[in-house]
Amino acid sequence: MYQIDLNCDLGESFGEYTIGQDEEILPFITSANIACGFHAGDPSVMKKTVQLALKNKVRIGAHPGLPDLVGFGRRHMTITPQEAYDIVVYQIGALSGFIKAEGERMQHVKPHGALYNMAVMNRALSEAIAEAVYHVDPQLILFGLAGSELVKAGERIGLKTANEVFSDRTYQEDGTLTPRTHTNALIHTFEDSVSQVIRMIKEGKVRSIQGSDVAVKAETICIHGDRPEALHFAKNLREAFLSEGIKSKAFL
Amino acid sequence: MYQIDLNCDLGESFGEYTIGQDEEILPFITSANIACGFHAGDPSVMKKTVQLALKNKVRIGAHPGLPDLVGFGRRHMTITPQEAYDIVVYQIGALSGFIKAEGERMQHVKPHGALYNMAVMNRALSEAIAEAVYHVDPQLILFGLAGSELVKAGERIGLKTANEVFSDRTYQEDGTLTPRTHTNALIHTFEDSVSQVIRMIKEGKVRSIQGSDVAVKAETICIHGDRPEALHFAKNLREAFLSEGIKSKAFL
Amino acid sequence: MYQIDLNCDLGESFGEYTIGQDEEILPFITSANIACGFHAGDPSVMKKTVQLALKNKVRIGAHPGLPDLVGFGRRHMTITPQEAYDIVVYQIGALSGFIKAEGERMQHVKPHGALYNMAVMNRALSEAIAEAVYHVDPQLILFGLAGSELVKAGERIGLKTANEVFSDRTYQEDGTLTPRTHTNALIHTFEDSVSQVIRMIKEGKVRSIQGSDVAVKAETICIHGDRPEALHFAKNLREAFLSEGIKSKAFL
Amino acid sequence: MYQIDLNCDLGESFGEYTIGQDEEILPFITSANIACGFHAGDPSVMKKTVQLALKNKVRIGAHPGLPDLVGFGRRHMTITPQEAYDIVVYQIGALSGFIKAEGERMQHVKPHGALYNMAVMNRALSEAIAEAVYHVDPQLILFGLAGSELVKAGERIGLKTANEVFSDRTYQEDGTLTPRTHTNALIHTFEDSVSQVIRMIKEGKVRSIQGSDVAVKAETICIHGDRPEALHFAKNLREAFLSEGIKSKAFL
Repeated sequence: MYQIDLNCDLGESFGEYTIGQDEEILPFITSANIACGFHAGDPSVMKKTVQLALKNKVRIGAHPGLPDLVGFGRRHMTITPQEAYDIVVYQIGALSGFIKAEGERMQHVKPHGALYNMAVMNRALSEAIAEAVYHVDPQLILFGLAGSELVKAGERIGLKTANEVFSDRTYQEDGTLTPRTHTNALIHTFEDSVSQVIRMIKEGKVRSIQGSDVAVKAETICIHGDRPEALHFAKNLREAFLSEGIKSKAFL
Repeated sequence: MYQIDLNCDLGESFGEYTIGQDEEILPFITSANIACGFHAGDPSVMKKTVQLALKNKVRIGAHPGLPDLVGFGRRHMTITPQEAYDIVVYQIGALSGFIKAEGERMQHVKPHGALYNMAVMNRALSEAIAEAVYHVDPQLILFGLAGSELVKAGERIGLKTANEVFSDRTYQEDGTLTPRTHTNALIHTFEDSVSQVIRMIKEGKVRSIQGSDVAVKAETICIHGDRPEALHFAKNLREAFLSEGIKSKAFL
Repeated sequence: MYQIDLNCDLGESFGEYTIGQDEEILPFITSANIACGFHAGDPSVMKKTVQLALKNKVRIGAHPGLPDLVGFGRRHMTITPQEAYDIVVYQIGALSGFIKAEGERMQHVKPHGALYNMAVMNRALSEAIAEAVYHVDPQLILFGLAGSELVKAGERIGLKTANEVFSDRTYQEDGTLTPRTHTNALIHTFEDSVSQVIRMIKEGKVRSIQGSDVAVKAETICIHGDRPEALHFAKNLREAFLSEGIKSKAFL
Repeated sequence: MYQIDLNCDLGESFGEYTIGQDEEILPFITSANIACGFHAGDPSVMKKTVQLALKNKVRIGAHPGLPDLVGFGRRHMTITPQEAYDIVVYQIGALSGFIKAEGERMQHVKPHGALYNMAVMNRALSEAIAEAVYHVDPQLILFGLAGSELVKAGERIGLKTANEVFSDRTYQEDGTLTPRTHTNALIHTFEDSVSQVIRMIKEGKVRSIQGSDVAVKAETICIHGDRPEALHFAKNLREAFLSEGIKSKAFL
């Protein structure tokens, strides 16, 4: 029996500003990555999103980002490993407050945006992030790009990890994602997306844009919730999984 | 045997900016209120301050403030009880992250500046703050002005509370502090400060500026760390307590 | 010949976050109040909004607010007149940069949200705001609630002012707006809105909710752009003005 | 007759936080680079610093930085040229507000920290910054590292520029500063500092750490104001200039 976790970034609204369709996407996912106020989210949004996730029986993770609200945490910044450790501990803690207030526990941590991308190749940064997670709670699961330095750092320190794959992105023959600047970075049809994901789950392989097959471990799949077609896609993906005998399930 | 807790606001530096003399004041206090990044402090300062407090065997509390860095959390804002709940949960959580990362636990929560002052008389706000503390961890001790709505709200919900007194402020006959705008708001000599504190601890009374004695419960005393003479004052106060048979001790 | 200015708050988006339908509302208004980055807006949004307003031949004003992005500048803060002066100078200057970069000049200044409301009754605050505007550029026109302390302070210092009226709010017999907390604060039908506005413009009077007529000077009317029906309302209002012989026109 | 401008970063305090010794350093410098609220400074600090500079007859420039208060604008961020344009226009504008309010005009613009350093080699970024300055006011003088892309971009667009040299940093044979990570990045004695500066001014040459002489144009020299010995150094430098017949003078 195959199984997969479906995660989605939630709680990205801020004050009067709304992003995403959290309430609508929740029925289709199994894990929620909730923004912690640095790149998106605010205390009131965080509380509401935690409550909403729990109501939908969706597992909760912290989604710590760089301190860059205007850039939505997507701009690289030259932070030191020490600074990475500090902002990750802070943000996990802040979200934990709301989860504890609801009598629940956190499942995982998935860095956001530039912090996630910087950690793919950067070993020192990845170790700092993994250490932050481990020090706050060694039971937490660390989400990172499949095969990334972040996942390796998590394993070395003794954390459970989850290798993340993307349904709408193409892969390079070295197993990395094709950069968004390339014309063929994105998969455009729903059918191609679904087949790629199902093959990653069942065979542990993905066809790279160079043509060769690459091994990839798919433990959690990232669903984007902010596009208009996101709900439709999520719903169809869940149905495709069902008919393929793939169980959609979080880690706790 | 009389006993008293000595608390001081710490961790108020931010990035390149330094406020306070945390390392110097720590040997003289028993509880540290650590800023949580809203009115002062940042993740790196928080981690260092937690480590410093633990090294000095000083108990740690969260010092949540209004989201107003440029105003140092001292400007009143018309936040709703719900917003107060959310920012308090967030900030307690954030600081908890660093304390857990060091393998320790938080002792108390003391609101900062305008949030502290607004809570003195405002019952709804006080209840929201007390609820936030209780929901995150019912073992936490809530610090508030002696006799304030905040202390009462804490007691009602079932929290341990600590009535706080000030050594350098005069009192009104209704037990409130003389507002800083009054000319006689401050006690100017060290001797007068010490006698007022000792009488509050031993007799549970303070002489108001109207001349009458007022009942006041002194469980923790606020030491200011940011003035040049603060260290000298703290040292002398500890010695005065010693010779008066008053034990300086935190709550855990 | 009667004439009126139609102003609307624009440029309230921030980073990835969008608020309002600036492009759609611009054809129906004559003056744009552009957020300056304190309660809403960011440098990139400001530039784009300035360019968009100029393209639509709409006059531009600064819309300075309190430093409270998460509260959208709607929460009262106890700032000093000096702080009000400083944040108003800063924000006028910042927006001026973009207007000068496009080779144009600023028409007016209208404080936002809590800053606007606090200035209605507070003379010292109003004088500080008027001074800030006057010192940066004595040619600027100060927008304030009709009959408010802000308009009076502007007149005293020698600024041109514009008395602002609201189409969708009811008035008290003392000429102030009925507070939003009251059940009858809002006018609910389009017809009532339009008649109230037209009477204010033509007769200088408004029927208070107490039943008596109150004198009110209507020089600019506030159009809200963020509601779904805003465009429809703005379009109909312009047509009503046309058929009533009221010219829609900015001040420059 | 030789002449040189002495510039110093000022107005870097923020709210309750103080950095620098602005009042003490002002008598020794001829141009002040005033922080604009992104990496340091706030509206109240900006006003006071503008007034202080004018009182000391020191010329004023904007010192725009990256939006990174906690990192003091020293951490590189991957901003687009367009974002650079926008934040520079915003910050020049904001400071201009205070200068206009005092009836004066701005002399120059000098990017701060990471923005300054990123512009040394990055042509697209430098062009965006130069354009921002030129569009707001073509009379402004653009300060940049001597020989940098920033100075070249300024010249291309038609701005007056000022090549900046450092008294306490060593140079590479390609004319760039030795990176701070190198052991010999800094000049440690006052005598060596002064001779290097005087040679740069009089001969237009500096001895690189590789041993060869490199051409360098010295039009303005950066004085650091935040170290304890800064005042002493500035005073001695002015005296050395006097005895060498080098006139200390701003550009306006």
